[in-house]
Amino acid sequence: MDTKKFDIPADKAEALVEVVRFIGGQNWSPATGGNYSLRLDNFHCLITQSSKDKRNLQTSDLMVCNFNNQALDPTLKPSAETALHTKLYQLDSEIGCVLHTHSVPATVLSRSVSEQVRIHGFEMQKALYGNTSHTETVCVSVFDNNQDIPALAKEVERKWQQGNINQPGLLVRGHGLYAWGRDVFEARRHVEGFEFLFSCLWQERLAGGMLL
Amino acid sequence: MDTKKFDIPADKAEALVEVVRFIGGQNWSPATGGNYSLRLDNFHCLITQSSKDKRNLQTSDLMVCNFNNQALDPTLKPSAETALHTKLYQLDSEIGCVLHTHSVPATVLSRSVSEQVRIHGFEMQKALYGNTSHTETVCVSVFDNNQDIPALAKEVERKWQQGNINQPGLLVRGHGLYAWGRDVFEARRHVEGFEFLFSCLWQERLAGGMLL
Amino acid sequence: MDTKKFDIPADKAEALVEVVRFIGGQNWSPATGGNYSLRLDNFHCLITQSSKDKRNLQTSDLMVCNFNNQALDPTLKPSAETALHTKLYQLDSEIGCVLHTHSVPATVLSRSVSEQVRIHGFEMQKALYGNTSHTETVCVSVFDNNQDIPALAKEVERKWQQGNINQPGLLVRGHGLYAWGRDVFEARRHVEGFEFLFSCLWQERLAGGMLL
Amino acid sequence: MDTKKFDIPADKAEALVEVVRFIGGQNWSPATGGNYSLRLDNFHCLITQSSKDKRNLQTSDLMVCNFNNQALDPTLKPSAETALHTKLYQLDSEIGCVLHTHSVPATVLSRSVSEQVRIHGFEMQKALYGNTSHTETVCVSVFDNNQDIPALAKEVERKWQQGNINQPGLLVRGHGLYAWGRDVFEARRHVEGFEFLFSCLWQERLAGGMLL
Repeated sequence: MDTKKFDIPADKAEALVEVVRFIGGQNWSPATGGNYSLRLDNFHCLITQSSKDKRNLQTSDLMVCNFNNQALDPTLKPSAETALHTKLYQLDSEIGCVLHTHSVPATVLSRSVSEQVRIHGFEMQKALYGNTSHTETVCVSVFDNNQDIPALAKEVERKWQQGNINQPGLLVRGHGLYAWGRDVFEARRHVEGFEFLFSCLWQERLAGGMLL
Repeated sequence: MDTKKFDIPADKAEALVEVVRFIGGQNWSPATGGNYSLRLDNFHCLITQSSKDKRNLQTSDLMVCNFNNQALDPTLKPSAETALHTKLYQLDSEIGCVLHTHSVPATVLSRSVSEQVRIHGFEMQKALYGNTSHTETVCVSVFDNNQDIPALAKEVERKWQQGNINQPGLLVRGHGLYAWGRDVFEARRHVEGFEFLFSCLWQERLAGGMLL
Repeated sequence: MDTKKFDIPADKAEALVEVVRFIGGQNWSPATGGNYSLRLDNFHCLITQSSKDKRNLQTSDLMVCNFNNQALDPTLKPSAETALHTKLYQLDSEIGCVLHTHSVPATVLSRSVSEQVRIHGFEMQKALYGNTSHTETVCVSVFDNNQDIPALAKEVERKWQQGNINQPGLLVRGHGLYAWGRDVFEARRHVEGFEFLFSCLWQERLAGGMLL
Repeated sequence: MDTKKFDIPADKAEALVEVVRFIGGQNWSPATGGNYSLRLDNFHCLITQSSKDKRNLQTSDLMVCNFNNQALDPTLKPSAETALHTKLYQLDSEIGCVLHTHSVPATVLSRSVSEQVRIHGFEMQKALYGNTSHTETVCVSVFDNNQDIPALAKEVERKWQQGNINQPGLLVRGHGLYAWGRDVFEARRHVEGFEFLFSCLWQERLAGGMLL
């Protein structure tokens, strides 16, 4: 680990690297895109440096940021999107990991709906924490993309406090998925579940059969 | 093998793990979903524990259940869907392996039909035991999904005894495929054959050309 | 090599195995389907035994057949489709390798046309021997599937002798592609070229824009 | 390195081989198609020999050409498309790497538009050098395919000098993508970004929702 002034347990860094490589291998994080983080304590997270190839991430490609989005190692500059990760960690102390992917189905689906994606009748809904039946309806909030990440983070905070983010993920339009979980393993299951569901919904849209 | 009170031949455990990893690698079992089992005798099967990553399954992720869906190792809790596996083993003593996958094509196709998927004119039909020509019509039964697995198992039993399940697989709507065979190799061939056929049918549906 | 009574150069067996594994890895030969062969002399070819997993083929999964479709090792039974391979070797002494794949795009495309697939305007046409420009039109013959392989082989022979097979491949409806070349490397390039072109044509069909 | 009369830094050859293998593994360079090069100085580039399998490229599959498209090793014959690579190196001394891929989405998309592909509202636009927001519109020029590569290169030069090529890539209709960057890593990011965007646009076209 290059990250200075912070003792990072190697197993946490390796767990984050492993999930990012998996996500890279699924083509959900092309062109060095995407950001991936893991909570270290109530003030810090471990996060991927920007511009790194996610298919072959190394633990030395990680950095430590505090929740004011400052790198502990002053030679490193965090990605602008760090602010959305740290906002989520502050909104819910149970969140232990945030994974932000860029897949084709999530991107095109997010551009084909207005404020939410509604998901109903899929067994895979149960992959998302808190859902126990395909008979429920899962609503995933869709936010307009914004290059002003603090403004986007504020918008997420507003919706969260209104109680309108009740799934472990959200979409940014034309951009991708943010999914989270209590640990790396749950966050990964959520990414896989969401990506599966988005692929299904997109296929049904192509067939003319999706009601959004 | 963690599984206690039962001597499991290592080759059986390894054969099951190998097919599950293959299926995981095809993205047919995402988000820890799916269940995979192998008959040990007339009263027991080896089955995957739930919540395990199927892409990287280990033999220690398997457990032994009896056909009353009880784990022999009391520290392990079988997946609810075990009941469908054990029902199939009891319905037909020739069934040696049951593979339950979650693929995008099987999921969306199962939501686009009512009670059955009809397949006609494909050479691949011959991958399914008992079919010798593309000129036959293969009918795959589709069951409504149900979180009450014993009720779903009873429904499968009812259709089976009416003689209405005459292919080595069935679909659960919005959920996935159950396929079986006399051994792991045949069950895998059936999964591959069904998944290929479902992909073709879905593509034809997108083209507006499928008659279901 | 298990194959008796015939001295097979190991490099030929390995070259065939390598191309079959590549094809298997592309999901162009699922459920143990497909047949792959290589000419040994004017009377014999090396061919895959049926029912073998093509993703992980071994040289011991190959056998030697003569052009009367008889195995040199009497304990082995050749696949019925061997007759189409041997017919092609007899029709053209330049053919050194025949590869028969089962892909989703080839299968659904072959079911959506009548007697031929017409391909025009693609640079990839140049991957097919004898084509030097995207401005030409490539016509691939489509044969109705037939479980009577000698009858199908005769039909291929008839069209060949009429001069109506002038590309290094043909489609069998609802079944798959037969492609060939002077050696394994050319045959593989033809498979890759055809599969690419079929994928493009199918995508254009889904978009409503293909003129067949 | 087989390449004579030129001292090539091994790290450059290996970096080019690595990106080509990655591209091959993505199925963006099937049937030995595609050409990949890297600037060595103001007069020479390292470029892939034609007819090599791009999924398993070796450094010995590379050759050195000067910007008159002549191989330094007289026993090697450069691909006809070398002329487009060397034209780009001469048009812009900042270009350090040119990657020419053949993907299904790029191919079909290029056939479905007239003179340009317009891209708007995607975060992934920022993967392309010089773009900083999804609110901009990226226009990718599409050239008619031409077997006369010097004529095509001249056409590219004409558009370049008119200032009409302002993204780090262009499409050749029915043929594929040329993308470039200051080094191998940037050129690769551009290929990944373009291919992602083309996949999205094609999906939206299938859904009937793309405005081109």
